Amino acid sequence: MPIDLNSDMGESYSVYTLGADEEILRWVTSANVACGWHGGDPHVMRATVARAKALGVAVGAHPSYPDHLGFGRRVMQLSRQEARDYMLYQIGALRAFADALGVRLQHVKPHGAIYNVAIKDRELSLGIAEAVKEAGGDLILVTLPDGETLKAGREVGVRVAREAFGDRAYNEDGTLVSRKLPGSLITDPEAVAERVLGFVKGEVKTITGKTIRLEADTICMHGDTPGAARIAQTVRKRLEAAGIRPTPMGEFVRRG
Amino acid sequence: MPIDLNSDMGESYSVYTLGADEEILRWVTSANVACGWHGGDPHVMRATVARAKALGVAVGAHPSYPDHLGFGRRVMQLSRQEARDYMLYQIGALRAFADALGVRLQHVKPHGAIYNVAIKDRELSLGIAEAVKEAGGDLILVTLPDGETLKAGREVGVRVAREAFGDRAYNEDGTLVSRKLPGSLITDPEAVAERVLGFVKGEVKTITGKTIRLEADTICMHGDTPGAARIAQTVRKRLEAAGIRPTPMGEFVRRG
Amino acid sequence: MPIDLNSDMGESYSVYTLGADEEILRWVTSANVACGWHGGDPHVMRATVARAKALGVAVGAHPSYPDHLGFGRRVMQLSRQEARDYMLYQIGALRAFADALGVRLQHVKPHGAIYNVAIKDRELSLGIAEAVKEAGGDLILVTLPDGETLKAGREVGVRVAREAFGDRAYNEDGTLVSRKLPGSLITDPEAVAERVLGFVKGEVKTITGKTIRLEADTICMHGDTPGAARIAQTVRKRLEAAGIRPTPMGEFVRRG
Amino acid sequence: MPIDLNSDMGESYSVYTLGADEEILRWVTSANVACGWHGGDPHVMRATVARAKALGVAVGAHPSYPDHLGFGRRVMQLSRQEARDYMLYQIGALRAFADALGVRLQHVKPHGAIYNVAIKDRELSLGIAEAVKEAGGDLILVTLPDGETLKAGREVGVRVAREAFGDRAYNEDGTLVSRKLPGSLITDPEAVAERVLGFVKGEVKTITGKTIRLEADTICMHGDTPGAARIAQTVRKRLEAAGIRPTPMGEFVRRG
Repeated sequence: MPIDLNSDMGESYSVYTLGADEEILRWVTSANVACGWHGGDPHVMRATVARAKALGVAVGAHPSYPDHLGFGRRVMQLSRQEARDYMLYQIGALRAFADALGVRLQHVKPHGAIYNVAIKDRELSLGIAEAVKEAGGDLILVTLPDGETLKAGREVGVRVAREAFGDRAYNEDGTLVSRKLPGSLITDPEAVAERVLGFVKGEVKTITGKTIRLEADTICMHGDTPGAARIAQTVRKRLEAAGIRPTPMGEFVRRG
Repeated sequence: MPIDLNSDMGESYSVYTLGADEEILRWVTSANVACGWHGGDPHVMRATVARAKALGVAVGAHPSYPDHLGFGRRVMQLSRQEARDYMLYQIGALRAFADALGVRLQHVKPHGAIYNVAIKDRELSLGIAEAVKEAGGDLILVTLPDGETLKAGREVGVRVAREAFGDRAYNEDGTLVSRKLPGSLITDPEAVAERVLGFVKGEVKTITGKTIRLEADTICMHGDTPGAARIAQTVRKRLEAAGIRPTPMGEFVRRG
Repeated sequence: MPIDLNSDMGESYSVYTLGADEEILRWVTSANVACGWHGGDPHVMRATVARAKALGVAVGAHPSYPDHLGFGRRVMQLSRQEARDYMLYQIGALRAFADALGVRLQHVKPHGAIYNVAIKDRELSLGIAEAVKEAGGDLILVTLPDGETLKAGREVGVRVAREAFGDRAYNEDGTLVSRKLPGSLITDPEAVAERVLGFVKGEVKTITGKTIRLEADTICMHGDTPGAARIAQTVRKRLEAAGIRPTPMGEFVRRG
Repeated sequence: MPIDLNSDMGESYSVYTLGADEEILRWVTSANVACGWHGGDPHVMRATVARAKALGVAVGAHPSYPDHLGFGRRVMQLSRQEARDYMLYQIGALRAFADALGVRLQHVKPHGAIYNVAIKDRELSLGIAEAVKEAGGDLILVTLPDGETLKAGREVGVRVAREAFGDRAYNEDGTLVSRKLPGSLITDPEAVAERVLGFVKGEVKTITGKTIRLEADTICMHGDTPGAARIAQTVRKRLEAAGIRPTPMGEFVRRG
């Protein structure tokens, strides 16, 4: 089973820098580039796309709620149409930079709260999926392997990539253990890498110790946590040592 | 000589409405659609593009300085690279809606202060022209028939449309009479129409009464002044009565 | 029983105008002035405070969620501390204009969605009430006659004014009939005035025809609906004809 | 001659951190706190005021052009009234936090481009000075020892503090050597401290080696340059070793 490694990128803004983009870009295969609504700005967008291109990393849009002050991390109530138009706007803005630099936009991964809220919100997910569809170019929508966004993406007729998290504990039903609970975050690079190797086989060991099925196309590599770069490097090295070469999701994700 | 009639559109925002878009759209051939930085928002952008499409009016981007509070009307000092990235961002955002609705983006007309400042600022004009070039799709840059923006557009290699104003008085050197001076604005619909008929012949009568040459591809129809719709209607009717059918600039503007 | 008439004001922004402020100000006794986060801007704030002062209308802050694009009408999830700091910022900004013009800030009425959400959200209401308390000057918090905001205000120790709506239908439990239901809005000026006269006696006839007790200190006069000015005028005239002179809430609302 | 040490503070924003505020606060006597228009946000404002209070550092407002994307560093053309209202808004917002925490607002130091532009722009300076006057509380306006802002402040009738820069080279006419020229920046902590000792005596050695008179009330300690904290510490220690105890400007600046 092919696997992609993705990471959020380009979240620096104005004079503010965030994340270890340059370092992380060496280890991942897909970059989710912020579009200016929660982080990022036009210069950061251009620079991030250029850097990804130089390293052969595929580029996607990482659109957000219109909540700059809250970095897109707070729940907002949007209508389906609002979500659709906000996503399309941001995808278009990023695509202009991708096109200008000769990079084909590969995917859309909603950022922060809108990603999470959409998992359980059919109308919101439909708005997002419709934007991905309307944007054209056979863009892939990235979401959890289960939930309303996956369903909406398939219903609307876009490609969907299922995302897993090497540094998050899972419940037996395949959902993520809340960050508020002990043991929800895995910080040891080797342990994360071990879990990623499991995802490649379509399985994950839950927080209760049980092994469950979990099919994923892409693994999220966090870029803003301490040690993020080292985790990404370890995962990449361990995958390659196991004969697995991470591949941009655009090369293998098919329409559901 | 073919002639286009353009008007700024889609500057409503959130709960705020501005302009007589629906009325004006009936008389013009090109719509300059705000991209959310001085006016407009994603919903207004979609609705405006849809309305223009329904009436067969060509669509262009109307990008601005990042000055929402000042409606893009205040001078800001931007570097060439800042201008380039800000313009490209806005063009991309609008194009996403145009593409989604099956409309080919035709042109870019900078809004307000950045349009005016660029006329005399080579670096700023180069930044704008480079964005238009990078955006691809053979977009036309709209500017005055003389000045740094025209030069920059030609130097960079984009199509340039020369704009004239039926409701503004001209100096003998072909520049616009300052709005602060008496007689600078023409508000009588018939007088405006008369002047537009002059533009079609490549001439205009200056504020001093002299007739000078002035070649224009497109005439700006203001949409937010009192009586704007009636002026636009009168111009259109008078042109058609004279056997001239306004045509979207994309159909006749050639590379300089 | 004394009664205050309040209205939202100063929601114009940049080149955009909204509401019939000048007209409405003639009939109300308290103005809720937008603070720039959903509508309004520093110039509008100054002008609105000056206009209110000239007409002897008391001035309050009308702070909002940080949602300019949505005019503060969309639910957002804020923590108690976020609400507290956002409210305090906006109150302070408006107070600077009030102080500069020699006007004592009288009250705080949260705008739109945050007003509504807070009614049922204890933590949010506490954040708002704490900001009102911290702002000092014995400010009055305006909210519904029942709900978490009223409780929070009393708990925190600020004055609370209970607000009623002359143009909205009430359920038997004293809550407002949802705007989505038929009959929820009353648009006839005389009918609104009739209901306001009821509020003065501490009662309201519900949508089911029953008369219930409802104690209110201030009546909301909407400013952005068609016919708003005429409704406000009718209410004022009818009150005065009945020998009731509306009074700014600051003159009679006591600590709970 | 008494001397104050000031530093820009509270420019972190949302998830972004900037500057070494906590460290610098140990060595300065006045904190210029960002008001959310170029940096800072309501939470950062509260935290910064609280931290300054805890260390006995006086608090001032650090208002900016409305240019968040450019961190207030780009020239904008504002009218006198625009400047006045924008400054007053920001001063009021910050003062609400100061008042809430029992801190008396001491001063106003314009940020970045508006500080610099105002030095040569009488109308802009008058707008700023009028806001400081209107804000009341005998606030001090901080600016260069010469220029339009100083003049405007005195004309309008506010206290003015003259600012000098220990890490910047001076021309013989008392102006700062452009940052673009070699030798314009002094980075050695001991050299900066030496210059600050000179300011206390009312003199500075120019880039040409000549000693000129330069009267200053407050010295700017940059907070965002590498080694900023060490420079601030060195200056403070050297001043104290020379028997000079830096004092908040509010204690000694008199009306001009």
